[in-house]
Amino acid sequence: MKLNCDLGESYGSWTMGLDSQVMPFIDQANIACGFHAGDPDVMQRTLQLARQHSVQIGAHPAYPDLNGFGRRSMQCSHNEIINLIHYQLAALDGMAQCQGASVSYVKPHGALYNDMMSKPAVWQAVLQAIASYHKPLQLMLLADNNRQSYQQQAAALKVELIFEAFADRRYTNDGKLSPRSQHGAVLHGNEVLAQVSQLLNDGSVTTDSGQRLALNADTLCVHGDNPSAIAKVQQIRALLV
Amino acid sequence: MKLNCDLGESYGSWTMGLDSQVMPFIDQANIACGFHAGDPDVMQRTLQLARQHSVQIGAHPAYPDLNGFGRRSMQCSHNEIINLIHYQLAALDGMAQCQGASVSYVKPHGALYNDMMSKPAVWQAVLQAIASYHKPLQLMLLADNNRQSYQQQAAALKVELIFEAFADRRYTNDGKLSPRSQHGAVLHGNEVLAQVSQLLNDGSVTTDSGQRLALNADTLCVHGDNPSAIAKVQQIRALLV
Amino acid sequence: MKLNCDLGESYGSWTMGLDSQVMPFIDQANIACGFHAGDPDVMQRTLQLARQHSVQIGAHPAYPDLNGFGRRSMQCSHNEIINLIHYQLAALDGMAQCQGASVSYVKPHGALYNDMMSKPAVWQAVLQAIASYHKPLQLMLLADNNRQSYQQQAAALKVELIFEAFADRRYTNDGKLSPRSQHGAVLHGNEVLAQVSQLLNDGSVTTDSGQRLALNADTLCVHGDNPSAIAKVQQIRALLV
Amino acid sequence: MKLNCDLGESYGSWTMGLDSQVMPFIDQANIACGFHAGDPDVMQRTLQLARQHSVQIGAHPAYPDLNGFGRRSMQCSHNEIINLIHYQLAALDGMAQCQGASVSYVKPHGALYNDMMSKPAVWQAVLQAIASYHKPLQLMLLADNNRQSYQQQAAALKVELIFEAFADRRYTNDGKLSPRSQHGAVLHGNEVLAQVSQLLNDGSVTTDSGQRLALNADTLCVHGDNPSAIAKVQQIRALLV
Repeated sequence: MKLNCDLGESYGSWTMGLDSQVMPFIDQANIACGFHAGDPDVMQRTLQLARQHSVQIGAHPAYPDLNGFGRRSMQCSHNEIINLIHYQLAALDGMAQCQGASVSYVKPHGALYNDMMSKPAVWQAVLQAIASYHKPLQLMLLADNNRQSYQQQAAALKVELIFEAFADRRYTNDGKLSPRSQHGAVLHGNEVLAQVSQLLNDGSVTTDSGQRLALNADTLCVHGDNPSAIAKVQQIRALLV
Repeated sequence: MKLNCDLGESYGSWTMGLDSQVMPFIDQANIACGFHAGDPDVMQRTLQLARQHSVQIGAHPAYPDLNGFGRRSMQCSHNEIINLIHYQLAALDGMAQCQGASVSYVKPHGALYNDMMSKPAVWQAVLQAIASYHKPLQLMLLADNNRQSYQQQAAALKVELIFEAFADRRYTNDGKLSPRSQHGAVLHGNEVLAQVSQLLNDGSVTTDSGQRLALNADTLCVHGDNPSAIAKVQQIRALLV
Repeated sequence: MKLNCDLGESYGSWTMGLDSQVMPFIDQANIACGFHAGDPDVMQRTLQLARQHSVQIGAHPAYPDLNGFGRRSMQCSHNEIINLIHYQLAALDGMAQCQGASVSYVKPHGALYNDMMSKPAVWQAVLQAIASYHKPLQLMLLADNNRQSYQQQAAALKVELIFEAFADRRYTNDGKLSPRSQHGAVLHGNEVLAQVSQLLNDGSVTTDSGQRLALNADTLCVHGDNPSAIAKVQQIRALLV
Repeated sequence: MKLNCDLGESYGSWTMGLDSQVMPFIDQANIACGFHAGDPDVMQRTLQLARQHSVQIGAHPAYPDLNGFGRRSMQCSHNEIINLIHYQLAALDGMAQCQGASVSYVKPHGALYNDMMSKPAVWQAVLQAIASYHKPLQLMLLADNNRQSYQQQAAALKVELIFEAFADRRYTNDGKLSPRSQHGAVLHGNEVLAQVSQLLNDGSVTTDSGQRLALNADTLCVHGDNPSAIAKVQQIRALLV
């Protein structure tokens, strides 16, 4: 089980995330590519930081919505989605190569991620974007009940998938994240560690209705926004050893 | 002598340039990368068009100024210039590779081009950007009286230069372009063809004060904005055969 | 019956629309405010043109999506919609006042217009934005079968409505525009003039299934994109006299 | 002597400044208008905060450079500067009026402020922008040795000026701010309070070469970026009573 984290989400004079503090404890850095956050300078520094800690580099492309931080769904066409993913991941990959590194996977950000998991047309476009990129890249998505279906479709296009689980989010019975608006949707303190332990030891989570749900994940999404998130990541890392 | 042209300068719903009409007659396409013009969809289509006509692909990066079309000088730092060039050319190069092509040179756009030719610090940053890119790329710049100095500095960083002349611009005695504000700075009709012929046959231009100026150029910058510009390119192409 | 037209949709170096040619023939100019098109310079020139021809000035606010020309629906919250409308219309109104004019109505653009007509939450937010603006403004919307309902809601907030019909679009039986994807959805040539005549003389249109649909409109939306559109506007204007 | 502070410089998901903590202690809020920082939602909240504390509202317009936070000089034309100032201040003023308030002065931001103080063409454009606005507004600028000249030019256009001094910046003998690159250019701790006291009691500062420089200022620029800046503002406020 690996740990992945969204990083490089500062922009110009605005700082977000304690990137240098969380980087030592993660395996995979999902780096913003300039459309929801990140700019060429931020990307250069974040890539450098990932290199220093031998962390895998993932492109974290988004809808073009800086003001909404990529969290607002936008009605983009099939081709628009392919091209905006190619643009963003190519930019990050080329900058990574300037530092002797390279992008190894793609994790869509925010609304693009949610749309990918809920709208078949967006899923098809994202998958096509990865499949038509000029080198093989993995696609990171939510480990839910449709894992097998996702894998069949991806395999048909020769795309390898990485399934992620969320350390700090409650699940519904069908393997989706409980909406944030729902009480208890975000786990705190020991609940997080308990969920991680159950994922590691039993390959399952306990859903919002109390059922056991088998969840086969390759990586855990963690956060590096503030000191308490950093402390949590260190505790989770300790469980993984 | 080759012909190069700025292309892919449409944006979203706005169209600029008769790209499909000029592409058959040029050798090198300077393609906008999204900062002054161009968006992922425009770039994808422009790359496709360049491929169809076996035209060399150049990245045409600019200051981040969509509203000013990259024509307003911006006080960017050394590192900002390097990173914004890397970002833009990486984006274009990755998208080109998705189509089995690749970027072979860089020609800065607008104010970034002018600043490169007039401000040593900007020239150093641009040169450093090309030198530190992860693969060898040529840099296109204005053929003026300082050719030898440019070449020495570029050679020290193992960067190959492409010198361009302008078919339709009058030159000063020191090999700079006469400012557009000056009467006669832009050549029209047969003046253009006469200047091209002189460049081809004598390796020189006649300056705004009537002197002969030796000008050793590898490529001619032409335009594809309107039907009369297209006709002019065809006439220039005929002279090259 | 008045004529309204979307104008001021150029941006920076990109030109769109034959604004100076269509302005003499219309009554109401829907002027872009910088979020989907228009920039401060374009707005200044468009306002000047409207003033010269004594044309009423309308704010034409949009989702913040320059690249998509405001045509892509974006999931904005109630408050985001109110604030983005206030910002855009205040900017245009202040600039209009610098020329001795002022904004008298608001017509949302593109996806924001469509969402207003199809999603009750967006309609509520748009209506609230107009109602909470610091001076009375009219709101322009599509004349469809729900006219009475719209008017009741608007009256409750003391907002006056302007209902518009489309000269060149076929209608469905429930007073919506036939989707552009449908054959015959866009009227051409004499079909346009016939629809205008029927609106003027009979207060109705003939729908895509051949039925007569009563349509009570205050203004007709016309276009000024190209010479043939300009000619059409002149013909429609002649019918109105 | 009043206290002014730059505020409303958050953007989307990025937070900057402790606006709610500094607002109670200042008299004049320079509010970002969306071009270097601020967005319609941030502006709405900042205006609300200013209203609650009965703080005067100033527009803080900038070059269109979100990524550079308006700190990079951009070569804008006379008309571009006028229009971008009109656009930004009109947007803020209209939003302020929706809350029963209004903009009373303009303080250009960052590079636009520096250019106004160092390039006569930019000063002329800014002054013209204020003079041609549709209602009288004051213009805030740096109190330096040219006060009289500024006042004559402003008076000719019927623009009232507000001169500001910096609490925490060392001055040169000609009344300019010592460049930040120079050792001791930024004052700390008691140096700040000493400079404020001298301004209040003697109408002067001690320059970087140790001379007494008479400085007639109407307002002091203070900062609200972090807890120690807030503490400093409170100490300065105490001196003013």
